[in-house]
Amino acid sequence: MPYEYITNAAAIYQKSFAIIRREAQLKGLSEREEQIAVRMIHAAGEITLEKNIRFSQSFAETSTKALATGAPILCDTKMVSEGITRSRLPAANDVICTLQDPRVHDLARTLKTTRSAAALELWKNYMDGAVIAIGNAPTALFHLLNMLEDQRCPRPATIIGCPVGFVGASESKEALWTSQPTSCCTVLGRLGGSAITVAAVNAIASCAE
Amino acid sequence: MPYEYITNAAAIYQKSFAIIRREAQLKGLSEREEQIAVRMIHAAGEITLEKNIRFSQSFAETSTKALATGAPILCDTKMVSEGITRSRLPAANDVICTLQDPRVHDLARTLKTTRSAAALELWKNYMDGAVIAIGNAPTALFHLLNMLEDQRCPRPATIIGCPVGFVGASESKEALWTSQPTSCCTVLGRLGGSAITVAAVNAIASCAE
Repeated sequence: MPYEYITNAAAIYQKSFAIIRREAQLKGLSEREEQIAVRMIHAAGEITLEKNIRFSQSFAETSTKALATGAPILCDTKMVSEGITRSRLPAANDVICTLQDPRVHDLARTLKTTRSAAALELWKNYMDGAVIAIGNAPTALFHLLNMLEDQRCPRPATIIGCPVGFVGASESKEALWTSQPTSCCTVLGRLGGSAITVAAVNAIASCAE
Repeated sequence: MPYEYITNAAAIYQKSFAIIRREAQLKGLSEREEQIAVRMIHAAGEITLEKNIRFSQSFAETSTKALATGAPILCDTKMVSEGITRSRLPAANDVICTLQDPRVHDLARTLKTTRSAAALELWKNYMDGAVIAIGNAPTALFHLLNMLEDQRCPRPATIIGCPVGFVGASESKEALWTSQPTSCCTVLGRLGGSAITVAAVNAIASCAE
Protein backbone atom coordinates (compact mmCIF):
# COMPACT_ATOMS: atom_id res chain seq x y z
CA MET A 1 0.00 0.00 0.00
CA PRO A 2 1.79 3.16 -1.13
CA TYR A 3 2.28 6.06 1.28
CA GLU A 4 0.13 9.10 0.59
CA TYR A 5 1.53 12.61 0.99
CA ILE A 6 1.28 16.10 -0.46
CA THR A 7 3.11 16.17 -3.79
CA ASN A 8 2.53 19.79 -4.79
CA ALA A 9 5.68 21.75 -4.02
CA ALA A 10 3.89 25.11 -3.78
CA ALA A 11 1.30 23.68 -1.38
CA ILE A 12 4.06 22.19 0.80
CA TYR A 13 5.84 25.55 1.05
CA GLN A 14 2.59 27.35 1.78
CA LYS A 15 1.60 24.93 4.54
CA SER A 16 5.12 24.95 6.03
CA PHE A 17 5.28 28.73 6.17
CA ALA A 18 1.79 28.90 7.71
CA ILE A 19 2.86 26.50 10.49
CA ILE A 20 5.98 28.59 11.16
CA ARG A 21 3.98 31.85 11.29
CA ARG A 22 1.52 30.24 13.70
CA GLU A 23 4.12 28.72 16.04
CA ALA A 24 7.04 31.17 16.01
CA GLN A 25 7.25 34.48 17.84
CA LEU A 26 7.88 36.87 14.97
CA LYS A 27 6.48 40.08 16.42
CA GLY A 28 8.81 43.04 16.26
CA LEU A 29 10.18 42.06 12.86
CA SER A 30 9.45 44.13 9.77
CA GLU A 31 7.52 42.39 6.99
CA ARG A 32 10.73 41.74 5.02
CA GLU A 33 12.63 40.54 8.09
CA GLU A 34 9.76 38.18 8.86
CA GLN A 35 9.99 36.65 5.37
CA ILE A 36 13.70 36.07 5.87
CA ALA A 37 13.27 34.64 9.38
CA VAL A 38 10.50 32.29 8.21
CA ARG A 39 12.77 30.80 5.53
CA MET A 40 15.64 30.43 8.00
CA ILE A 41 13.35 28.61 10.47
CA HIS A 42 12.02 26.46 7.61
CA ALA A 43 15.53 25.37 6.67
CA ALA A 44 16.40 24.61 10.29
CA GLY A 45 13.22 22.69 11.07
CA GLU A 46 13.39 24.48 14.40
CA ILE A 47 10.79 27.02 15.52
CA THR A 48 12.90 28.22 18.45
CA LEU A 49 15.59 29.45 16.07
CA GLU A 50 13.80 32.82 16.01
CA LYS A 51 15.04 33.59 19.52
CA ASN A 52 18.59 33.71 18.21
CA ILE A 53 18.12 35.34 14.81
CA ARG A 54 19.51 38.88 14.63
CA PHE A 55 19.14 41.43 11.82
CA SER A 56 21.04 44.70 11.91
CA GLN A 57 18.74 47.64 11.32
CA SER A 58 19.47 48.07 7.62
CA PHE A 59 20.06 44.39 6.78
CA ALA A 60 16.82 43.57 4.98
CA GLU A 61 16.88 46.68 2.81
CA THR A 62 20.62 46.77 2.13
CA SER A 63 20.93 43.10 1.23
CA THR A 64 17.83 43.11 -0.97
CA LYS A 65 19.08 46.17 -2.81
CA ALA A 66 22.60 44.75 -3.19
CA LEU A 67 21.32 41.62 -4.93
CA ALA A 68 18.86 43.60 -7.03
CA THR A 69 21.71 45.74 -8.33
CA GLY A 70 23.89 42.77 -9.23
CA ALA A 71 26.12 42.18 -6.20
CA PRO A 72 28.05 38.91 -6.24
CA ILE A 73 27.45 36.38 -3.45
CA LEU A 74 30.60 35.12 -1.75
CA CYS A 75 30.18 31.75 0.01
CA ASP A 76 32.48 29.90 2.41
CA THR A 77 31.53 26.41 1.18
CA LYS A 78 30.13 24.63 -1.85
CA MET A 79 27.16 23.51 0.27
CA VAL A 80 26.21 27.18 0.52
CA SER A 81 26.99 28.12 -3.08
CA GLU A 82 25.19 25.05 -4.46
CA GLY A 83 22.15 25.57 -2.26
CA ILE A 84 21.35 29.04 -3.57
CA THR A 85 18.40 28.85 -5.96
CA ARG A 86 19.69 30.48 -9.15
CA SER A 87 16.19 31.17 -10.51
CA ARG A 88 15.43 33.41 -7.49
CA LEU A 89 18.45 35.68 -8.09
CA PRO A 90 17.27 39.08 -9.38
CA ALA A 91 20.30 39.94 -11.53
CA ALA A 92 21.84 36.60 -12.50
CA ASN A 93 24.26 37.37 -9.66
CA ASP A 94 27.62 35.62 -9.58
CA VAL A 95 27.84 32.99 -6.83
CA ILE A 96 31.44 32.49 -5.82
CA CYS A 97 33.16 29.94 -3.59
CA THR A 98 36.96 29.95 -3.56
CA LEU A 99 37.48 27.04 -1.14
CA GLN A 100 38.48 24.60 -3.90
CA ASP A 101 40.90 27.05 -5.57
CA PRO A 102 44.29 25.35 -5.88
CA ARG A 103 46.00 28.34 -4.26
CA VAL A 104 44.12 27.87 -0.96
CA HIS A 105 46.28 25.03 0.33
CA ASP A 106 49.47 27.10 0.21
CA LEU A 107 47.71 30.22 1.46
CA ALA A 108 46.49 28.32 4.53
CA ARG A 109 50.01 27.10 5.24
CA THR A 110 51.53 30.55 4.79
CA LEU A 111 48.90 32.27 6.92
CA LYS A 112 48.89 29.43 9.48
CA THR A 113 45.13 29.14 9.38
CA THR A 114 42.36 26.85 8.11
CA ARG A 115 41.63 26.43 4.42
CA SER A 116 38.18 27.92 5.07
CA ALA A 117 39.76 31.13 6.38
CA ALA A 118 42.55 31.27 3.79
CA ALA A 119 40.02 31.00 0.95
CA LEU A 120 38.73 34.48 1.85
CA GLU A 121 42.02 36.01 0.75
CA LEU A 122 40.84 35.22 -2.80
CA TRP A 123 37.63 37.20 -2.28
CA LYS A 124 39.27 40.63 -2.33
CA ASN A 125 38.56 41.37 -5.99
CA TYR A 126 34.85 40.66 -5.49
CA MET A 127 34.21 42.02 -1.99
CA ASP A 128 33.28 45.61 -2.81
CA GLY A 129 29.49 45.81 -2.36
CA ALA A 130 29.14 42.01 -2.17
CA VAL A 131 26.75 39.84 -0.19
CA ILE A 132 28.80 37.50 2.01
CA ALA A 133 27.33 34.18 3.10
CA ILE A 134 29.27 32.21 5.72
CA GLY A 135 27.39 29.11 6.80
CA ASN A 136 29.99 26.72 7.99
CA ALA A 137 33.35 27.82 9.31
CA PRO A 138 33.80 30.03 12.38
CA THR A 139 37.40 30.59 11.28
CA ALA A 140 36.14 32.08 8.00
CA LEU A 141 33.94 34.57 9.87
CA PHE A 142 36.75 35.51 12.27
CA HIS A 143 39.14 35.91 9.32
CA LEU A 144 36.63 38.16 7.55
CA LEU A 145 36.24 40.37 10.63
CA ASN A 146 40.01 40.68 10.88
CA MET A 147 40.30 41.52 7.15
CA LEU A 148 37.71 44.27 7.63
CA GLU A 149 39.68 45.83 10.49
CA ASP A 150 41.98 47.05 7.71
CA GLN A 151 40.12 50.04 6.29
CA ARG A 152 41.78 49.47 2.88
CA CYS A 153 39.92 46.15 2.56
CA PRO A 154 36.99 46.48 0.14
CA ARG A 155 33.65 46.80 2.04
CA PRO A 156 30.91 44.23 1.43
CA ALA A 157 27.30 45.47 1.41
CA THR A 158 26.21 42.88 3.90
CA ILE A 159 27.28 39.79 5.83
CA ILE A 160 25.13 36.74 6.52
CA GLY A 161 27.29 35.11 9.17
CA CYS A 162 25.85 31.84 10.49
CA PRO A 163 28.61 29.31 11.13
CA VAL A 164 27.55 26.31 13.19
CA GLY A 165 29.10 24.29 15.97
CA PHE A 166 30.82 23.98 19.28
CA VAL A 167 34.20 25.72 18.88
CA GLY A 168 34.27 29.33 17.75
CA ALA A 169 30.80 29.47 16.23
CA SER A 170 29.12 31.35 19.09
CA GLU A 171 32.20 33.49 19.59
CA SER A 172 32.59 34.49 15.94
CA LYS A 173 28.89 35.37 15.59
CA GLU A 174 28.99 37.36 18.84
CA ALA A 175 32.00 39.22 17.40
CA LEU A 176 30.11 39.97 14.17
CA TRP A 177 27.01 41.13 16.03
CA THR A 178 28.99 43.32 18.44
CA SER A 179 31.27 44.92 15.86
CA GLN A 180 28.85 45.15 12.89
CA PRO A 181 31.44 46.21 10.32
CA THR A 182 28.55 46.40 7.84
CA SER A 183 24.88 45.43 7.75
CA CYS A 184 24.52 41.84 8.89
CA CYS A 185 22.35 38.91 9.87
CA THR A 186 23.31 36.13 12.25
CA VAL A 187 22.01 33.35 14.47
CA LEU A 188 23.59 33.65 17.92
CA GLY A 189 24.69 30.50 19.72
CA ARG A 190 25.68 27.10 18.38
CA LEU A 191 22.94 26.71 15.78
CA GLY A 192 23.56 27.84 12.22
CA GLY A 193 24.81 26.10 9.12
CA SER A 194 24.72 26.08 5.38
CA ALA A 195 20.98 25.45 5.03
CA ILE A 196 20.02 28.39 7.28
CA THR A 197 22.51 30.62 5.44
CA VAL A 198 21.22 29.55 2.04
CA ALA A 199 17.66 30.20 3.22
CA ALA A 200 18.58 33.78 4.15
CA VAL A 201 20.17 34.33 0.73
CA ASN A 202 17.17 32.82 -1.06
CA ALA A 203 14.86 35.08 0.96
CA ILE A 204 16.71 38.32 0.21
CA ALA A 205 16.97 37.29 -3.45
CA SER A 206 13.20 37.28 -3.89
CA CYS A 207 10.04 37.97 -1.90
CA ALA A 208 8.30 35.03 -3.62
CA GLU A 209 7.07 32.37 -1.20
CA MET B 1 42.88 44.65 17.39
CA PRO B 2 42.45 41.35 15.51
CA TYR B 3 40.27 38.58 16.93
CA GLU B 4 42.14 35.56 18.24
CA TYR B 5 40.82 32.06 17.67
CA ILE B 6 41.97 28.48 17.11
CA THR B 7 43.20 28.16 13.53
CA ASN B 8 44.25 24.50 13.50
CA ALA B 9 41.48 22.51 11.82
CA ALA B 10 42.41 19.21 13.49
CA ALA B 11 42.43 20.85 16.93
CA ILE B 12 39.01 22.40 16.25
CA TYR B 13 37.52 19.02 15.32
CA GLN B 14 39.13 17.35 18.33
CA LYS B 15 37.81 19.97 20.74
CA SER B 16 34.34 19.94 19.15
CA PHE B 17 34.03 16.17 19.35
CA ALA B 18 35.22 16.19 22.99
CA ILE B 19 32.52 18.73 23.90
CA ILE B 20 29.87 16.60 22.19
CA ARG B 21 31.02 13.40 23.94
CA ARG B 22 30.94 15.24 27.27
CA GLU B 23 27.51 16.82 26.82
CA ALA B 24 25.49 14.30 24.81
CA GLN B 25 23.91 11.08 26.09
CA LEU B 26 25.56 8.53 23.82
CA LYS B 27 25.33 5.45 26.03
CA GLY B 28 23.80 2.43 24.37
CA LEU B 29 25.42 3.15 21.02
CA SER B 30 28.15 0.92 19.62
CA GLU B 31 31.55 2.54 19.08
CA ARG B 32 30.87 2.98 15.35
CA GLU B 33 27.35 4.31 15.93
CA GLU B 34 28.78 6.79 18.42
CA GLN B 35 31.24 8.08 15.82
CA ILE B 36 28.39 8.61 13.38
CA ALA B 37 26.13 10.26 15.96
CA VAL B 38 28.93 12.62 17.07
CA ARG B 39 29.42 13.86 13.51
CA MET B 40 25.68 14.32 13.03
CA ILE B 41 25.43 16.34 16.26
CA HIS B 42 28.50 18.34 15.19
CA ALA B 43 26.86 19.28 11.90
CA ALA B 44 23.62 20.23 13.64
CA GLY B 45 25.22 22.29 16.40
CA GLU B 46 22.61 20.70 18.63
CA ILE B 47 23.46 18.31 21.45
CA THR B 48 19.85 17.23 21.93
CA LEU B 49 19.77 15.78 18.41
CA GLU B 50 20.93 12.45 19.89
CA LYS B 51 17.47 11.86 21.39
CA ASN B 52 16.05 11.58 17.87
CA ILE B 53 18.83 9.76 16.03
CA ARG B 54 17.94 6.17 15.12
CA PHE B 55 20.20 3.48 13.66
CA SER B 56 18.77 0.16 12.51
CA GLN B 57 20.68 -2.76 13.99
CA SER B 58 22.91 -3.42 11.01
CA PHE B 59 23.22 0.18 9.77
CA ALA B 60 26.78 0.98 10.92
CA GLU B 61 28.25 -2.26 9.61
CA THR B 62 26.23 -2.49 6.39
CA SER B 63 26.78 1.11 5.33
CA THR B 64 30.49 1.07 6.15
CA LYS B 65 30.94 -2.15 4.18
CA ALA B 66 28.89 -0.84 1.24
CA LEU B 67 31.13 2.21 0.83
CA ALA B 68 34.29 0.17 1.36
CA THR B 69 33.27 -2.11 -1.50
CA GLY B 70 32.55 0.74 -3.90
CA ALA B 71 28.81 1.45 -3.53
CA PRO B 72 27.64 4.67 -5.19
CA ILE B 73 26.05 7.37 -3.01
CA LEU B 74 22.68 8.64 -4.29
CA CYS B 75 21.77 12.11 -3.01
CA ASP B 76 18.50 14.05 -3.20
CA THR B 77 20.13 17.48 -3.53
CA LYS B 78 23.36 19.11 -4.64
CA MET B 79 23.82 20.44 -1.11
CA VAL B 80 24.17 16.82 0.00
CA SER B 81 26.29 15.64 -2.94
CA GLU B 82 28.61 18.67 -2.73
CA GLY B 83 29.01 18.36 1.04
CA ILE B 84 30.43 14.84 0.96
CA THR B 85 34.19 14.96 1.51
CA ARG B 86 35.64 13.12 -1.46
CA SER B 87 38.98 12.44 0.25
CA ARG B 88 37.20 10.42 2.97
CA LEU B 89 35.56 8.03 0.48
CA PRO B 90 37.22 4.59 0.69
CA ALA B 91 36.74 3.53 -2.96
CA ALA B 92 36.49 6.74 -4.95
CA ASN B 93 32.74 6.08 -4.77
CA ASP B 94 30.46 7.76 -7.31
CA VAL B 95 28.37 10.54 -5.77
CA ILE B 96 25.21 11.00 -7.80
CA CYS B 97 22.47 13.64 -7.72
CA THR B 98 19.90 13.53 -10.52
CA LEU B 99 17.84 16.57 -9.45
CA GLN B 100 19.27 18.79 -12.19
CA ASP B 101 18.82 16.20 -14.94
CA PRO B 102 16.81 17.80 -17.78
CA ARG B 103 14.36 14.87 -17.77
CA VAL B 104 13.22 15.58 -14.20
CA HIS B 105 10.88 18.43 -15.10
CA ASP B 106 8.77 16.27 -17.42
CA LEU B 107 8.94 13.28 -15.09
CA ALA B 108 7.55 15.40 -12.25
CA ARG B 109 4.69 16.57 -14.45
CA THR B 110 3.90 13.05 -15.66
CA LEU B 111 4.05 11.53 -12.17
CA LYS B 112 2.24 14.53 -10.62
CA THR B 113 4.86 14.93 -7.92
CA THR B 114 7.72 17.18 -6.88
CA ARG B 115 10.96 17.41 -8.84
CA SER B 116 12.75 16.04 -5.75
CA ALA B 117 10.62 12.88 -5.87
CA ALA B 118 10.67 12.50 -9.65
CA ALA B 119 14.48 12.68 -9.69
CA LEU B 120 14.59 9.29 -7.93
CA GLU B 121 13.14 7.61 -11.02
CA LEU B 122 16.58 8.21 -12.56
CA TRP B 123 18.31 6.34 -9.71
CA LYS B 124 17.15 2.89 -10.74
CA ASN B 125 20.31 1.93 -12.64
CA TYR B 126 22.47 2.79 -9.61
CA MET B 127 20.27 1.65 -6.71
CA ASP B 128 21.40 -1.95 -6.36
CA GLY B 129 23.62 -2.02 -3.23
CA ALA B 130 23.80 1.79 -3.08
CA VAL B 131 24.01 4.14 -0.12
CA ILE B 132 21.07 6.54 -0.30
CA ALA B 133 21.34 9.97 1.32
CA ILE B 134 18.15 12.03 1.52
CA GLY B 135 18.70 15.24 3.46
CA ASN B 136 16.13 17.63 2.19
CA ALA B 137 12.85 16.53 0.65
CA PRO B 138 10.23 14.49 2.52
CA THR B 139 8.60 13.77 -0.86
CA ALA B 140 11.84 12.11 -2.03
CA LEU B 141 11.87 9.81 1.00
CA PHE B 142 8.18 8.93 0.59
CA HIS B 143 8.74 8.30 -3.13
CA LEU B 144 11.68 6.01 -2.33
CA LEU B 145 9.60 4.00 0.15
CA ASN B 146 6.88 3.61 -2.46
CA MET B 147 9.41 2.54 -5.11
CA LEU B 148 10.74 -0.11 -2.71
CA GLU B 149 7.26 -1.55 -2.17
CA ASP B 150 7.71 -2.98 -5.66
CA GLN B 151 9.96 -6.00 -5.06
CA ARG B 152 11.35 -5.68 -8.60
CA CYS B 153 12.94 -2.34 -7.63
CA PRO B 154 16.71 -2.74 -7.07
CA ARG B 155 17.54 -2.85 -3.32
CA PRO B 156 19.90 -0.27 -1.85
CA ALA B 157 22.30 -1.41 0.88
CA THR B 158 21.27 1.37 3.21
CA ILE B 159 19.19 4.53 3.52
CA ILE B 160 20.21 7.68 5.39
CA GLY B 161 16.85 9.41 5.47
CA CYS B 162 16.93 12.77 7.23
CA PRO B 163 14.65 15.29 5.47
CA VAL B 164 13.92 18.41 7.46
CA GLY B 165 10.89 20.57 8.05
CA PHE B 166 7.29 21.02 8.97
CA VAL B 167 5.26 19.18 6.33
CA GLY B 168 5.94 15.50 5.74
CA ALA B 169 9.41 15.36 7.28
CA SER B 170 8.37 13.69 10.56
CA GLU B 171 5.87 11.50 8.74
CA SER B 172 8.29 10.29 6.06
CA LYS B 173 11.00 9.48 8.61
CA GLU B 174 8.50 7.68 10.85
CA ALA B 175 7.47 5.66 7.77
CA LEU B 176 11.12 4.78 7.05
CA TRP B 177 11.79 3.81 10.65
CA THR B 178 8.63 1.71 10.93
CA SER B 179 8.95 -0.09 7.61
CA GLN B 180 12.77 -0.44 7.44
CA PRO B 181 12.89 -1.70 3.85
CA THR B 182 16.67 -1.98 4.33
CA SER B 183 19.24 -0.92 6.94
CA CYS B 184 18.73 2.73 7.74
CA CYS B 185 19.54 5.78 9.82
CA THR B 186 17.20 8.67 10.54
CA VAL B 187 16.51 11.63 12.83
CA LEU B 188 12.90 11.49 13.98
CA GLY B 189 10.89 14.71 14.20
CA ARG B 190 11.32 18.00 12.37
CA LEU B 191 15.10 18.30 12.62
CA GLY B 192 17.28 16.94 9.84
CA GLY B 193 18.78 18.45 6.75
CA SER B 194 21.61 18.24 4.29
CA ALA B 195 24.41 18.95 6.79
CA ILE B 196 23.32 16.19 9.17
CA THR B 197 22.94 13.78 6.25
CA VAL B 198 26.36 14.68 4.85
CA ALA B 199 27.86 14.19 8.31
CA ALA B 200 26.46 10.66 8.48
CA VAL B 201 27.91 9.85 5.04
CA ASN B 202 31.29 11.34 5.95
CA ALA B 203 31.28 9.26 9.16
CA ILE B 204 30.50 5.94 7.49
CA ALA B 205 33.06 6.73 4.78
CA SER B 206 35.93 6.83 7.26
CA CYS B 207 36.56 6.33 10.99
CA ALA B 208 39.07 9.20 10.94
CA GLU B 209 38.20 12.03 13.31
